[in-house]
Amino acid sequence: VTLDRAGDGPARNLETRVWLGVLAVHGEIFNRLNRAFMREFDITLAKFDVLAQLDRFPGGLTQGNLSRYLKVTGGNVTGLVRRLVADGLITREMSAADRRAFVVRLTAKGAEKFKAARELHDALLREWFGGSSQDDLEVALQSLMRLGQRVQAGRREGSA
Amino acid sequence: VTLDRAGDGPARNLETRVWLGVLAVHGEIFNRLNRAFMREFDITLAKFDVLAQLDRFPGGLTQGNLSRYLKVTGGNVTGLVRRLVADGLITREMSAADRRAFVVRLTAKGAEKFKAARELHDALLREWFGGSSQDDLEVALQSLMRLGQRVQAGRREGSA
Repeated sequence: VTLDRAGDGPARNLETRVWLGVLAVHGEIFNRLNRAFMREFDITLAKFDVLAQLDRFPGGLTQGNLSRYLKVTGGNVTGLVRRLVADGLITREMSAADRRAFVVRLTAKGAEKFKAARELHDALLREWFGGSSQDDLEVALQSLMRLGQRVQAGRREGSA
Repeated sequence: VTLDRAGDGPARNLETRVWLGVLAVHGEIFNRLNRAFMREFDITLAKFDVLAQLDRFPGGLTQGNLSRYLKVTGGNVTGLVRRLVADGLITREMSAADRRAFVVRLTAKGAEKFKAARELHDALLREWFGGSSQDDLEVALQSLMRLGQRVQAGRREGSA
């Protein structure tokens, strides 16, 4: 993953260069977090993301809603859920409200593993972004939030 | 994909919120581009990324170097290459210089498909980010470049 195309100057339009910048930062951090999680906790970043979403819903989530909330792209939800059940980190049960739906929940072991992994996650990000000033990070955050809102507004206007 | 966690306020540290912002924008654009490419060109974004890297090297790339240059995470390079060969978009041949290495190259059909897909890619990004001012986009780009440089500097200092 390199930043060269994002810094390419006027060869591509500005919108494309912003996207290449997102891809470069995403790829670098994604790969590092994934390696650290595999090494320390034997879980992928995609599995961590499932645990993170379930941690927000102690009552459990249907597989459909889980799928909507996931932030990490590329994981196959059905496969991830099956492997996390096999790991003993989540349960998957038929919904009492809708017998066609399945509800997934963290186990105690899953909640514990998530807590430890999240501590490492936040500590590593602090370290990797640590050379940036708080002002730079605030600017980056505001900028990303604005981009995200623009893109989502575009979708609401039906231009996707 | 939602921005809610990034906007969560002080519940998580600023570095983590920046990363959640990257994930939210990445996930939204990734999914949209992927869907558009599947619909219009019958290729995934991961395949497009392979074509994009090969387009920069008319003499071809070894599979090892290709793997290093890819920006889109999650694709399995060996599998992507095999499927693109089957699609007739690239070739894969033993390297003349090193018989243990394979060199991959765009075919004429692959180069043509890449050119058309890149036009759509840039047009869609212009549309989706189009509500942002040029100033906002410049700030976003500079901010992402700085983040990427920080993270890579951290690695050179051995803190990964």
